[in-house]
Amino acid sequence: MATGSVLETVTAEEARRVIDAAAAKATEIGQPMDIAVVDAGGNLKAHVRMDGANIGSITIAINKAYTAIAFQCETGDLQGLTRPDGPIYGLNDAHGGRLVVFPGGIPLVRNGDIVGAVGVSTGTIEQDQEVAEAGVAAF
Amino acid sequence: MATGSVLETVTAEEARRVIDAAAAKATEIGQPMDIAVVDAGGNLKAHVRMDGANIGSITIAINKAYTAIAFQCETGDLQGLTRPDGPIYGLNDAHGGRLVVFPGGIPLVRNGDIVGAVGVSTGTIEQDQEVAEAGVAAF
Amino acid sequence: MATGSVLETVTAEEARRVIDAAAAKATEIGQPMDIAVVDAGGNLKAHVRMDGANIGSITIAINKAYTAIAFQCETGDLQGLTRPDGPIYGLNDAHGGRLVVFPGGIPLVRNGDIVGAVGVSTGTIEQDQEVAEAGVAAF
Amino acid sequence: MATGSVLETVTAEEARRVIDAAAAKATEIGQPMDIAVVDAGGNLKAHVRMDGANIGSITIAINKAYTAIAFQCETGDLQGLTRPDGPIYGLNDAHGGRLVVFPGGIPLVRNGDIVGAVGVSTGTIEQDQEVAEAGVAAF
Repeated sequence: MATGSVLETVTAEEARRVIDAAAAKATEIGQPMDIAVVDAGGNLKAHVRMDGANIGSITIAINKAYTAIAFQCETGDLQGLTRPDGPIYGLNDAHGGRLVVFPGGIPLVRNGDIVGAVGVSTGTIEQDQEVAEAGVAAF
Repeated sequence: MATGSVLETVTAEEARRVIDAAAAKATEIGQPMDIAVVDAGGNLKAHVRMDGANIGSITIAINKAYTAIAFQCETGDLQGLTRPDGPIYGLNDAHGGRLVVFPGGIPLVRNGDIVGAVGVSTGTIEQDQEVAEAGVAAF
Repeated sequence: MATGSVLETVTAEEARRVIDAAAAKATEIGQPMDIAVVDAGGNLKAHVRMDGANIGSITIAINKAYTAIAFQCETGDLQGLTRPDGPIYGLNDAHGGRLVVFPGGIPLVRNGDIVGAVGVSTGTIEQDQEVAEAGVAAF
Repeated sequence: MATGSVLETVTAEEARRVIDAAAAKATEIGQPMDIAVVDAGGNLKAHVRMDGANIGSITIAINKAYTAIAFQCETGDLQGLTRPDGPIYGLNDAHGGRLVVFPGGIPLVRNGDIVGAVGVSTGTIEQDQEVAEAGVAAF
């Protein structure tokens, strides 16, 4: 058996703080959201589907957070790059349906290290981004 | 063992009524169709592949119904949004190949609650939408 | 656009209450856990990976909750039935890798209706079951 | 473009007759069922989830019907063969989670040709088989 525990990068308490801050912003703007937090390994740490949020956005929120870790950037940064005339057009087809290339996924940074990411989905991309930013601000 | 049954949102009788009305319209316009009904959880309640309908459209019809529930909208509403210059371009790649972003999937609404959805495929998008609408009208 | 919201069966507040009660029990017995709650459609409502819980158990916890809804029973009820000499041996291979046939998944019942389920994973099956039961008790 | 239609082996009318006969038997024995009919190509022709039937059994019923076509036998015929001491132990792991190796899936035969199959799930294997046989009898 292993002699220790897998090194973790985001705590459950931090994930909840991020989600609660994001949910508070979602409530403030009147748009229920799916909100997910992943760790540095891209694995789900916590998720909440607010009442009224999309069931289709469960996966989109998780995949936004995954994408933000997977490529060490905001998901919105990939939008221009992946459009038909962009340099990495086709990226979103290249990873088994796990990548999201529009806003709402943002890395969580601590002391210069990306240690996790938050992903938000159900609203417009402007709303998703605003709610994700509120989550990041609470990290 | 469980002490109850899973709460259901659409009955088999309702699903058949929707499918039969859709199939009648399909027959009227001379275009055989795949027709699927899902419940509020996106799970298949009933499906019929009319004689002559596409086998590839089995999945498309089911996924249209799923998409309509998953995003609480008609699948046609996603078409402009997901085109190459749209704000959520790439959505259809971001959910493991389950999303359809062209017409033919419509929510089933009862007393203001979305309780299921119908998806239709094989014809043109205009035909798919017309047949889906005929199904909705019978709900 | 849709004229209502998808009918929901478990609220975010209820899901958090179940998860918090389960996590409190997990802390009490000194075994960090993945804890997931799904709704009546089998779709994720909330998830927490406690610090120290397995990343492999993210999916197992979610799939335990899914299985409990999918077959309207506790996952432990399937264990004897699916063993090599059981009547439905092979069930766990027959659904694309989404079924769990050992303890830790329990339906959430309200007024005789199964409206969701909780799934717990990382510990022994006895611990997973005990923690899931603590979650159910708080529902 | 194609100059004809794909050759079909089971009509929608026949599939409905099989499903209705199976559902009548399910009602008679007091066990709601998922019932699926596939054609000779293993593709879904029709499906009904009776009220109260398992959502997990949607896939199991469809996969039982698929398995019956896929191996030109009743799914129950595979049970002994695939147990740990059987000659094709592991078969159910060898096809991406689509095979069911217990009773409830039966080929539909016309003039000595297997032209489709019916699959039934939610009850005990004895009930599933009995209901599937009632469907076959109506073919």
